[in-house]
Amino acid sequence: MVTPRRAWLVAVGDELLNGRTVDTNSGFMQRCLADHGLHTDAVLVVPDRAERIMSALEGTPAGALVILTGGLGPTRDDLTAATVATWSDRPLTENAIVADHLRALCERNNFPYRENMIKQGLLPNGFEALINPLGTAPAMVGEAHGRTLVLLPGVPQEMRALWPQVSAWLSDRGLQGQRLPSVLMRTARFSEPGLAKATESLRENHPGLDWSWWLTRWGVDVQASVADTDADLPEGLADRLAAELGDRVYARDLRGLNEVVQADLIAADRTVAVAESCTGGMLGAALTEMPGSSACFLGGALTYADDIKSVALGVSPETLSVHGAVSLETAREMAAGCRERFGGDYALSITGVAGPDGGTVDKPVGTICLGLASAQGVYAGRYRLGPHRYRNRELSVSFALDALRRHVAHGVDPFAGAEGEVRR
Amino acid sequence: MVTPRRAWLVAVGDELLNGRTVDTNSGFMQRCLADHGLHTDAVLVVPDRAERIMSALEGTPAGALVILTGGLGPTRDDLTAATVATWSDRPLTENAIVADHLRALCERNNFPYRENMIKQGLLPNGFEALINPLGTAPAMVGEAHGRTLVLLPGVPQEMRALWPQVSAWLSDRGLQGQRLPSVLMRTARFSEPGLAKATESLRENHPGLDWSWWLTRWGVDVQASVADTDADLPEGLADRLAAELGDRVYARDLRGLNEVVQADLIAADRTVAVAESCTGGMLGAALTEMPGSSACFLGGALTYADDIKSVALGVSPETLSVHGAVSLETAREMAAGCRERFGGDYALSITGVAGPDGGTVDKPVGTICLGLASAQGVYAGRYRLGPHRYRNRELSVSFALDALRRHVAHGVDPFAGAEGEVRR
Repeated sequence: MVTPRRAWLVAVGDELLNGRTVDTNSGFMQRCLADHGLHTDAVLVVPDRAERIMSALEGTPAGALVILTGGLGPTRDDLTAATVATWSDRPLTENAIVADHLRALCERNNFPYRENMIKQGLLPNGFEALINPLGTAPAMVGEAHGRTLVLLPGVPQEMRALWPQVSAWLSDRGLQGQRLPSVLMRTARFSEPGLAKATESLRENHPGLDWSWWLTRWGVDVQASVADTDADLPEGLADRLAAELGDRVYARDLRGLNEVVQADLIAADRTVAVAESCTGGMLGAALTEMPGSSACFLGGALTYADDIKSVALGVSPETLSVHGAVSLETAREMAAGCRERFGGDYALSITGVAGPDGGTVDKPVGTICLGLASAQGVYAGRYRLGPHRYRNRELSVSFALDALRRHVAHGVDPFAGAEGEVRR
Repeated sequence: MVTPRRAWLVAVGDELLNGRTVDTNSGFMQRCLADHGLHTDAVLVVPDRAERIMSALEGTPAGALVILTGGLGPTRDDLTAATVATWSDRPLTENAIVADHLRALCERNNFPYRENMIKQGLLPNGFEALINPLGTAPAMVGEAHGRTLVLLPGVPQEMRALWPQVSAWLSDRGLQGQRLPSVLMRTARFSEPGLAKATESLRENHPGLDWSWWLTRWGVDVQASVADTDADLPEGLADRLAAELGDRVYARDLRGLNEVVQADLIAADRTVAVAESCTGGMLGAALTEMPGSSACFLGGALTYADDIKSVALGVSPETLSVHGAVSLETAREMAAGCRERFGGDYALSITGVAGPDGGTVDKPVGTICLGLASAQGVYAGRYRLGPHRYRNRELSVSFALDALRRHVAHGVDPFAGAEGEVRR
């Protein structure tokens, strides 16, 4: 039996090469494979053309687990199953289980069981089918030329819905790798160079480890792994790393900052409301992304226009005219007004110059002011982010959530020392 | 001189294979290349390892334009330039322009000009450098083994900031392809099968065209292109396609639905406010994504908790208890209350069951109610979306924006005929 340790992903689809569709399947699959202790060695994106799918298959190393996504649909440009059949010398054959399932599905939905539908019941001879709970195209699993092959539909929801069955099939065949011991820290409020600097001495003291870090929606993640399976992580490494990174670490697992904040709020039986200007709803959207958010999120006000800041949150027109919309004073009044009007244990506010226009000498693009109101008091802080509108909005949400996270944990001013800080 | 018509993208980086970082660079590049009339033939994602970068280069066809992103940074796992140098038989050599630039940069920032920095001034001999306006790693361009090679940093902002220089370099060398005549329609409120059905007869009448369609954040895009450069699009095809698709077409260019709505509102000198429940801020976030949104977006209320719907928007508690939070009545009162309190020519409301919990027999997961208030009146409509929380929230925003788009254009009830519709 083949026991691959490395996976190759082949994403099939013209739409992945015309700049319109971002391939999010590959990342999902990489995370799923990591749970099996399998590392992804490469991703290949190829068009819906048989010879290109064929040469991608040829290019995978013997012994690999090869996962193909896309090209399993009903139309004539869906060529993955037929190409795998040709490459494997296993002609397409009707799979009785899939055919029965599709026939029943058509009957139930009063839909003709015709050519297009019949096509989806054809598998490379000897391959097993896994029934698609959300669509008509089944997943197909089998072996050929020393590779283990998994064919999945390209529609992200269907691919994800089929994964548990694929995972069980892989486990049944003993397709599990060994996970290398590693430590992960997810941080907010670090830039990449800032994080590199904070970890420098630790990295110099442990040159035998694999160190990597990368930008995320929330900030920067850093990971240290042993370089081979016989080694162990140095004792106490995680604690030393945490000590170097300080209170900017929000998770040591894969959770996002919004998930951590939601879990912390629910555990503390606390609620939050938001007051957003330059982020226009992104903070609320982040706090309602996960199921169960109604247990801690109440709502809030989007106060993009200045007079709405007064109408909806009671920010004094004098504050706005004297200090401006992007100021500690306005952030403070937005948070206080939000807590008073929407209730809730905490209120978070964001006001800033997202760019590309609206910057001044005193308040250049990337200047953001955050506010937080709680039973302990009303706090505000100012930060300097970068030149990019999208990233400034994204990081404003991250900085605000991180302030709330630390205030929920410690009850102190989360902006102490922020004033005047420049962070990109 | 080499005149490639096809491009291969090679994305280098461990972080693109561990499931944490989505490769958005490739899609951006594909769109930029399309503007040059160049089609992307494949994307390869490989780790930070010299032999893997080498075999990716080997796998590209002679005559191709090969664009490598990532691995140009200062640290020892940044191997792209050195690997290209080895593969090209052009040893790394100091580029005086880059070295001077980096030395001046270090001086200005009071930063030592040391090994790491010096490394970034080394280019494969004979390659040109393009100065990075946002970072230290320059882009590198040159030719080897019949390929045209472009090396770009992997940080998305830096890659994007360097593109105009790369584009000019490509144009200078005559690296332009011929764009195939094509027609694109971007639609909202279609499912993929729905769109396939609506275009079926047209596709059958024009079997010689390349037809493709794909899911987007807003709905489904459809494109028809001629199959080779000698052909022309059939006369009147765009109009016939538009007629089949009806008022669900929101753009014939690359703009998103939020961009279209913003442009329409600004052109009509109108403003909008929003009232969001299950989307928690995503509608406001979408309307403030583009620069210039303050010209038409005022703000709004996030009313996740039921009593906040009454407090912030004046929805009657009786409406909530009799009809429920997800009802046409509540959507109507949210929109009307929002327009009254926030001002604005239009107010849009969204309330729904995003899932995965909260569904009932009458109002299963995926049920959404939208409201729209304007000087013409107050309207509401109900739709059935799918089982997925993320997609339900995304499509709720799209359906709401599309209702506004049509109402701004025609002033009629944008939900006429919506009642009871099931769309996935």
